[in-house]
Amino acid sequence: MIKGNLVYGQSGGPSSVINASAYGVIKEAIKNRDIIEKVFVMKHGISGIINDDLIDVVEFKDQLEFLKNTPSSAFGSVRYKLPSYLEDPLVYEKMFKTFSKYNIKYFVYNGGNDSMDTCLKLNEYIKKHNLDIQVIGVPKTVDNDLPHTDHTPGFGSAAKYIANTMMQIKLDSTVYENGKITIVEIMGRHAGWLTAASHVANLHNLGPDLVYLPEVKIDLNVLVQQVIDVYGNSSNCLIAVSEGIKDLDGNFIGMMNSFKDAFGHNQLGGVAMKLGELLQEKLGISYRAIELSSTQRSAAFIRSESDVLEAEMVGRKAVEFILNGNSGKMVTIKRISNDPYTIQYEAYDVGEIANLEKVIPGSMINGMEMTQEFFDYILPLIEGEADVVYKHGMQQLFKLKK
Amino acid sequence: MIKGNLVYGQSGGPSSVINASAYGVIKEAIKNRDIIEKVFVMKHGISGIINDDLIDVVEFKDQLEFLKNTPSSAFGSVRYKLPSYLEDPLVYEKMFKTFSKYNIKYFVYNGGNDSMDTCLKLNEYIKKHNLDIQVIGVPKTVDNDLPHTDHTPGFGSAAKYIANTMMQIKLDSTVYENGKITIVEIMGRHAGWLTAASHVANLHNLGPDLVYLPEVKIDLNVLVQQVIDVYGNSSNCLIAVSEGIKDLDGNFIGMMNSFKDAFGHNQLGGVAMKLGELLQEKLGISYRAIELSSTQRSAAFIRSESDVLEAEMVGRKAVEFILNGNSGKMVTIKRISNDPYTIQYEAYDVGEIANLEKVIPGSMINGMEMTQEFFDYILPLIEGEADVVYKHGMQQLFKLKK
Repeated sequence: MIKGNLVYGQSGGPSSVINASAYGVIKEAIKNRDIIEKVFVMKHGISGIINDDLIDVVEFKDQLEFLKNTPSSAFGSVRYKLPSYLEDPLVYEKMFKTFSKYNIKYFVYNGGNDSMDTCLKLNEYIKKHNLDIQVIGVPKTVDNDLPHTDHTPGFGSAAKYIANTMMQIKLDSTVYENGKITIVEIMGRHAGWLTAASHVANLHNLGPDLVYLPEVKIDLNVLVQQVIDVYGNSSNCLIAVSEGIKDLDGNFIGMMNSFKDAFGHNQLGGVAMKLGELLQEKLGISYRAIELSSTQRSAAFIRSESDVLEAEMVGRKAVEFILNGNSGKMVTIKRISNDPYTIQYEAYDVGEIANLEKVIPGSMINGMEMTQEFFDYILPLIEGEADVVYKHGMQQLFKLKK
Repeated sequence: MIKGNLVYGQSGGPSSVINASAYGVIKEAIKNRDIIEKVFVMKHGISGIINDDLIDVVEFKDQLEFLKNTPSSAFGSVRYKLPSYLEDPLVYEKMFKTFSKYNIKYFVYNGGNDSMDTCLKLNEYIKKHNLDIQVIGVPKTVDNDLPHTDHTPGFGSAAKYIANTMMQIKLDSTVYENGKITIVEIMGRHAGWLTAASHVANLHNLGPDLVYLPEVKIDLNVLVQQVIDVYGNSSNCLIAVSEGIKDLDGNFIGMMNSFKDAFGHNQLGGVAMKLGELLQEKLGISYRAIELSSTQRSAAFIRSESDVLEAEMVGRKAVEFILNGNSGKMVTIKRISNDPYTIQYEAYDVGEIANLEKVIPGSMINGMEMTQEFFDYILPLIEGEADVVYKHGMQQLFKLKK
């Protein structure tokens, strides 16, 4: 093995367990001090490499145990689309200057589809120029939309938060005799995994009456009739809706404006309020729009035990795989069985993952309901409760000093 | 003591601990079977009395232990302003027919300012007509705005949720180098207690940059400048804002429309979005509006241990006080000391509580900050974590069968 240093970075939207992956990477790297001499973290992901902004982990080693319990991306994140070498050679020059300055031989990048695009481009450049640097991806996304992995760390905890929160909202929204329409907006641009998690609340008879996924195009006239039917029966209607639902023409119902982010995605939001306005106008019933917003990915007081454990493990496995000579791969989770829930960790080419999205397969969706296959899939992922450390009523969290 | 039956009801907005009060009332009533022969609950508060819709607690005795851990109002709630006897004698006739039919001698009503108005009117009618029925109020409101009680059950848990959630939102909203303005809208119509709770997150350096309470009228030009200053320093700005903030003319900034509810209050909501639009227009910086909405009062996975205990105790004390001959009172909490935190339970005339609101005293506010008096007051109320019972990843909750 090549002796040298390792750098770890976080990219894309935060999750409540990405720092558990950071913890896994750092702990496993430190265990391998014979090969990995120093461990650095990038500030704001790849920006930290481009702008020479790295931190040696010894600087926060006293806080390391808090990292595992802290939501969000402790070292900052970035939404920057790395250009190809042909488009911008200067940025590659800057990056490899930093690699050289810190003697980086191992690059570990934690994120979703877009982050794997960064891994892919970097790895291609390295191969082309015969550099002795290895690149590995660590999966992260609450959206659960990465292909070639059974699921993605971050999803289980967000799903658990959503399923439990839907039960609480159901209880809260049905206390009055003449109720209202309550619309809960859930994250997931093209993949409805998180929205579908709200179906788990229905196993306890405390779920949404209607659930709309981005995988199923919506006829708004049918939707209005479905709400009329539910409201007519119970004087209440609880709706779970993905931020990414589309009408029959394939247009996002919640599209607020035409701005696009750096990856060309439309900025979404506000679909609950738009639906509410539509229903209020058509039915004359008042509504409450609840956007779960960033709390669904950062609610560290309710995290799935299996998710936190797996988040740490994909970090540890990344170091193990990279030291075994892998490069240009992402750590994946393969499910061996549902009951008992058994998985193994593998590595898969980032080129097959970058920029691709895995939506809910048709076999898991049955009209407005989900099939048993879906529940067999999701239930092990929300099992168990991770520890939360409180002191005087407040969670004890990791915070990088300025 | 007069032998007879007891009826318990819930009114107003739900909280995450009102069912712990229900549990306390029911358990304490059952302990006094020599006097209280049967215990009933009203469906939808006073509506259950008017419409003869009561449930004998034996019907759900197998689920009683779950009640303590279940948020929201398990027996339904109501927002109905009881008219005076002169305005509507018929409604009184209906109520006392129900009292008579079920041999109700003890009326226990759990709610906030408006619910105590119901207790007051009922008690006045009873006194005037020399009926042998006693009335007692059990305090409940996340808003913490009841006078003559140190604090109100429901507040501590909502405050704990908000303080911890603000830390999580701070971590989530500051991951990018070029951040955004994040505005978190918090409940509390005239009293800023819940919004002020977000200051607790600043004790851990993870709080909002700016906090706007309804107690302090806001000059929007000054607010814009404050945001410019914060954003200029850190490229991020996290704002906590009460739904009830007012401009210099005393108008609600978040007023969405001119509809009023049954008690004549304006329906609020949307202030975060309104401020966001204003700031985006003035500063050209994008914003995220997060309305904590009903999750702040129903988040049963993070409840204050002292709050849950006190909620149960005010229920138990209500039964004790009523059996000691009290009527027309509400159970109050008197603080004896902050450290060690010590309280005692008393009873206070509902006439002095009904329809009145307790805002944050000026001595607890110092410009944009809170004084030590405020922290000494609030910290004991968020102390400790109440147990949460999960099974297969989901909370085990009480649910009244149809």
